[in-house]
Amino acid sequence: MKVAILMGSDSDFPVVERAINVLKAFDVQVVARVLSAHRTPHIAVDFAMKAEAEGIEVIIGAAGKAAHLPGVIAGVTTLPVIGLPIKSSTLDGLDSLLSIVQMPSGIPVATVAVDGAENAGLLAVQMLSIKYPELRAKMKHYKEEMAKNVLEKDASIQSRY
Amino acid sequence: MKVAILMGSDSDFPVVERAINVLKAFDVQVVARVLSAHRTPHIAVDFAMKAEAEGIEVIIGAAGKAAHLPGVIAGVTTLPVIGLPIKSSTLDGLDSLLSIVQMPSGIPVATVAVDGAENAGLLAVQMLSIKYPELRAKMKHYKEEMAKNVLEKDASIQSRY
Amino acid sequence: MKVAILMGSDSDFPVVERAINVLKAFDVQVVARVLSAHRTPHIAVDFAMKAEAEGIEVIIGAAGKAAHLPGVIAGVTTLPVIGLPIKSSTLDGLDSLLSIVQMPSGIPVATVAVDGAENAGLLAVQMLSIKYPELRAKMKHYKEEMAKNVLEKDASIQSRY
Amino acid sequence: MKVAILMGSDSDFPVVERAINVLKAFDVQVVARVLSAHRTPHIAVDFAMKAEAEGIEVIIGAAGKAAHLPGVIAGVTTLPVIGLPIKSSTLDGLDSLLSIVQMPSGIPVATVAVDGAENAGLLAVQMLSIKYPELRAKMKHYKEEMAKNVLEKDASIQSRY
Amino acid sequence: MKVAILMGSDSDFPVVERAINVLKAFDVQVVARVLSAHRTPHIAVDFAMKAEAEGIEVIIGAAGKAAHLPGVIAGVTTLPVIGLPIKSSTLDGLDSLLSIVQMPSGIPVATVAVDGAENAGLLAVQMLSIKYPELRAKMKHYKEEMAKNVLEKDASIQSRY
Amino acid sequence: MKVAILMGSDSDFPVVERAINVLKAFDVQVVARVLSAHRTPHIAVDFAMKAEAEGIEVIIGAAGKAAHLPGVIAGVTTLPVIGLPIKSSTLDGLDSLLSIVQMPSGIPVATVAVDGAENAGLLAVQMLSIKYPELRAKMKHYKEEMAKNVLEKDASIQSRY
Amino acid sequence: MKVAILMGSDSDFPVVERAINVLKAFDVQVVARVLSAHRTPHIAVDFAMKAEAEGIEVIIGAAGKAAHLPGVIAGVTTLPVIGLPIKSSTLDGLDSLLSIVQMPSGIPVATVAVDGAENAGLLAVQMLSIKYPELRAKMKHYKEEMAKNVLEKDASIQSRY
Amino acid sequence: MKVAILMGSDSDFPVVERAINVLKAFDVQVVARVLSAHRTPHIAVDFAMKAEAEGIEVIIGAAGKAAHLPGVIAGVTTLPVIGLPIKSSTLDGLDSLLSIVQMPSGIPVATVAVDGAENAGLLAVQMLSIKYPELRAKMKHYKEEMAKNVLEKDASIQSRY
Repeated sequence: MKVAILMGSDSDFPVVERAINVLKAFDVQVVARVLSAHRTPHIAVDFAMKAEAEGIEVIIGAAGKAAHLPGVIAGVTTLPVIGLPIKSSTLDGLDSLLSIVQMPSGIPVATVAVDGAENAGLLAVQMLSIKYPELRAKMKHYKEEMAKNVLEKDASIQSRY
Repeated sequence: MKVAILMGSDSDFPVVERAINVLKAFDVQVVARVLSAHRTPHIAVDFAMKAEAEGIEVIIGAAGKAAHLPGVIAGVTTLPVIGLPIKSSTLDGLDSLLSIVQMPSGIPVATVAVDGAENAGLLAVQMLSIKYPELRAKMKHYKEEMAKNVLEKDASIQSRY
Repeated sequence: MKVAILMGSDSDFPVVERAINVLKAFDVQVVARVLSAHRTPHIAVDFAMKAEAEGIEVIIGAAGKAAHLPGVIAGVTTLPVIGLPIKSSTLDGLDSLLSIVQMPSGIPVATVAVDGAENAGLLAVQMLSIKYPELRAKMKHYKEEMAKNVLEKDASIQSRY
Repeated sequence: MKVAILMGSDSDFPVVERAINVLKAFDVQVVARVLSAHRTPHIAVDFAMKAEAEGIEVIIGAAGKAAHLPGVIAGVTTLPVIGLPIKSSTLDGLDSLLSIVQMPSGIPVATVAVDGAENAGLLAVQMLSIKYPELRAKMKHYKEEMAKNVLEKDASIQSRY
Repeated sequence: MKVAILMGSDSDFPVVERAINVLKAFDVQVVARVLSAHRTPHIAVDFAMKAEAEGIEVIIGAAGKAAHLPGVIAGVTTLPVIGLPIKSSTLDGLDSLLSIVQMPSGIPVATVAVDGAENAGLLAVQMLSIKYPELRAKMKHYKEEMAKNVLEKDASIQSRY
Repeated sequence: MKVAILMGSDSDFPVVERAINVLKAFDVQVVARVLSAHRTPHIAVDFAMKAEAEGIEVIIGAAGKAAHLPGVIAGVTTLPVIGLPIKSSTLDGLDSLLSIVQMPSGIPVATVAVDGAENAGLLAVQMLSIKYPELRAKMKHYKEEMAKNVLEKDASIQSRY
Repeated sequence: MKVAILMGSDSDFPVVERAINVLKAFDVQVVARVLSAHRTPHIAVDFAMKAEAEGIEVIIGAAGKAAHLPGVIAGVTTLPVIGLPIKSSTLDGLDSLLSIVQMPSGIPVATVAVDGAENAGLLAVQMLSIKYPELRAKMKHYKEEMAKNVLEKDASIQSRY
Repeated sequence: MKVAILMGSDSDFPVVERAINVLKAFDVQVVARVLSAHRTPHIAVDFAMKAEAEGIEVIIGAAGKAAHLPGVIAGVTTLPVIGLPIKSSTLDGLDSLLSIVQMPSGIPVATVAVDGAENAGLLAVQMLSIKYPELRAKMKHYKEEMAKNVLEKDASIQSRY
């Protein structure tokens, strides 16, 4: 089980790291790269074209502003591509979101929330779970832990009123 | 290979049908249902909870306005859920898009473009391709046909100038 | 007179607390819960379905981002549901607002302003006032106090020019 | 049981009529008025101030563009006020929605979706149900009928695949 | 020459004060009031109705969020009303702007930029200049001073390159 | 009493004509011109600079898209300038509105609603009323007629329920 | 003088054709191609990389929705790239505009208005004019013709009032 | 090779400076001016009209809010004009962007991202490269340096996983 996480700029790393941590927690192997659709387009495309042969099964692309990386990757692979819009200094992430999610017919990008790095990681896990039942089991456990965490918070609030 | 397509209202069907047609073209079995997160919540949740046991491997949820269906489904299954925002009569689909894509941490929904039904179908195929190599082969063929189609259009335009 | 206030996450509490304080000031009994439409969906739905039997007469649901909690609650109860959109770290609360207010036909959610917690509490009081005349009397007093407060501010500004 | 429906202009009537029909279906008495916050402000305010004494228990205010009617009404009554934003010829209803829902602290307006007239009517019924148990019973029946209607649509779509 | 400046809340004062200072600089008499369209509606309306008789010739209304004050004032006077949208804590002032500028036909509000207090003051001066030629002369001087200020900045920048 | 109405393009005329008709109804003399801030900038600026000497007392500038005309006019005159944003074929008028209303400090443009031509005319009348009492009297009559019109509509709707 | 016009889909042609016509009117040689950043990425990139050697001096890229074509082209050439956002069936062109204009630092795309095809052509002419003085002369003539056209419209409107 | 950079206000300088630095790095001569479309319109227009004769080959116009400077400049010159929208204190730069990019047919402004000063400088360099081959060579070097920088960041991230 191997997932590639590409980010358009190393300034995206503090957000992207949360996706990596999720994948690590599920014992998914991670390949993390800084590859720009605009500054290193040939390397980005080359990476995406060879990804399947390298055993990568899902690609996450994180980018901000006119965020083309996930769409460009999706154009040259048949692996599922997850798009993670990064909030930039202007327009509050709306530009990143629309640049990623509004892909034209034929080339989907599975888009998560602006700065929604955990969900990018979890979505990759869910995709892999189609093939790897052990991941589905872990995912169920993960959801149970989340629920438990909410219940603890709930108990704490209830006790106040 | 089985995909469930849920729509919040039968008025979404003319858009959703394009996703079904894509899946059929890839010989993926389709379960199509009208199940509302608000009007038939128990049936929708029940369907999602049993989906894995029924052999369903991906769920597509299509909905408009305050589009909760894909998120509600995602809350009660560990299958990957694809969200298809439907343009409604006001706000040009921005409400549907944000209601689906901006999921909180822990519960991802793989969102495609507003009214991007073909891409919802193709994304399901790409997810299934992780497990089923024959789908990947078909997907590559599909991309080649798309490219050929563009080249024909290109030749036609080139010949005019 | 009993009102339930549900929040999707305990991070919403600092905003939600203002609604609780308003209700307390009107001597309305408050049940405060952290219940997520996505992380603890069954508990949230179960709570909403039993709410009427528990003597709850109005439910307030607070949530951010793809804010489904109030809509999900509204799907399984006939009690009036008030939606309180919480501003999140991106998109300035527009996602929360549209996810709550744009409910499809048949399942209304009475939506207040983004982070408008006091108004969520006051709206609950106004709804209860239909049945409980003593609340209406208090509400009139509350409005008079607000007006007095404005008049004091007005006097202070007037005196400066 | 009496609900007043005020509209800022008779051009809002085709939308507003759907709210009236909902209320009639629940045997709620309706007072329908064309009263503008800007063109007939004194009559609008006067109506709102006397509404409680006239036996009105909920007021619905429908308006478009810079939609001030529901907020102005809410300023001079303690009855719950429902705001129904009407889509206008520009800006796709966003102006109407924000002008109604973003009320300042102290004066709530229970806002429904843009052009969401049925929900304005249903929300009024839910508010009245706090006092009138027979309305709650009807409301439950209404929800069951909605669910049945979805199930019929569901059966029709299921049979196609 | 007398201008009234009404603000919906004293929290608007730090912005509004800049409009007052502009008017003072032009030796226009200022009446500054905190009058809320929602919390003290009768006093606000009463003030606006008597304004002409009090010698007031222009009214500036400043308000945020669902900013109804200038529109409500405009409904009960024939004096020109200037609307000053105040940026609030959510939605970056778009709600205030649309609530003020999108007035329905028949009741104009002369709207300036979000937090554009100086311009609200200057616009009042320009309106008064129709009647008072001495204000026009001062306004020309003001524009010349602005231009001089730009030229100084220009000289400073030019000298750097 | 003379008002100039400038439009950036003759395609704006069908909207602008409603402003002209309002002014004519108030017996205000109208100078209507097609003058573009971009295509005939010198003529537009020249017109604005001479406007005061020509007896013009208010200028209305109508424009769409990146609507610079009213702002450019305002830069070279001390007459009050009213900005009328025209809805264009994309972005639903938001571009026109922001380009006109968000003027920087020092150069106000009195902005009305998108396509709000009647209000542009009425605002000019209100500005002129500061100097010409006979216009104020007519304006009061106009408001009374508007109110009567609403009352007739109100009577018609009331009679239906 | 040679300009390449690339469009992401032949459905963009009716808009793009207006840019071609402008260039033809200036006797600029045009290469028109349908090349998709997503469906035929290698051909698009290959074209852009060879463009300079082919004597092309400016590239115009037209695309809609998540419009990546101009940015992708800009990544692999040092020729100036003009971005022409095409309005799509949802979100009114805002997605196309932001996907093109919000390019990250280092890779500019010279963006024109949504559906602003004439301006894309004219901007290419202005860029070429830096090198080819005869184009500048034609451009001046073009502007004079535009101005004459406005003056004719102006005369027609003036004569009506 | 000479480029003029005009800014509407000296408060834009911290952003604009980055464009100047880019041009300096390419040994392009820079003329930097503070010239307002509204406060010093005649000087701004005069500058633009004489720019060609002064040997200026490209003009960059930076402005915020209702950002008219680049468009006004473009109206009176046939030189290519680059528009640089500056983020202001409200509306997050959307007003500046739309005011600059949505130019009407006939008068293009080559718009870059909000606060995208480096790109404004680089776009000017690319335009000049049409005429000056030495700039193209430097531009290629610049892109290689950018790519190298990305590769270093890439190596650093790769080494962590």
